[in-house]
Amino acid sequence: MAIATVVEVYIKPEYAKQFEEISLYNHENSVKEPGNIRFDILKSNDDPARYTLFEVYESKEAAAAHKETEHYKKWRETVEPMMACPRKGIAHTPLNEM
Amino acid sequence: MAIATVVEVYIKPEYAKQFEEISLYNHENSVKEPGNIRFDILKSNDDPARYTLFEVYESKEAAAAHKETEHYKKWRETVEPMMACPRKGIAHTPLNEM
Repeated sequence: MAIATVVEVYIKPEYAKQFEEISLYNHENSVKEPGNIRFDILKSNDDPARYTLFEVYESKEAAAAHKETEHYKKWRETVEPMMACPRKGIAHTPLNEM
Repeated sequence: MAIATVVEVYIKPEYAKQFEEISLYNHENSVKEPGNIRFDILKSNDDPARYTLFEVYESKEAAAAHKETEHYKKWRETVEPMMACPRKGIAHTPLNEM
């Protein structure tokens, strides 16, 4: 069963450019993973410190495998000091075909 | 410029099945709109009353045109009494190609 995670991220504003760069690097590599369906990086229009990441994998196993990739580990390590508060991921099940 | 809206929805639990049906009807018609890029209906894995709608349109104009469609109006009217609290939409700009 597919798993869709909506991740709410608040960063320290001085890191915006760097956060976007490393997140796009993560996107470019994540969409090449075999079980990936969506990996969108979204910047809030109203709050320059807020981003939403939208990640869909075809199974729990594929989502777990993502966390073992080099690009995910690099992203996680790089963004750690950029976070204004802990990020919050909410797991969902998609109801439509993707 | 594309616009991505993340909509947080809480429904009264007794309406879950009906909410999913009318939302999938909305999805099926919305993805046929010319400016539509994403229209995902997501059910939270942890809270049966919570859903997230993820809608991306290629422009503000295309997003506005969606609100004039019959399927959107039917959805809005049908779900109105199902909402446990007002839904909240957060507008974003996608940073990756879609």
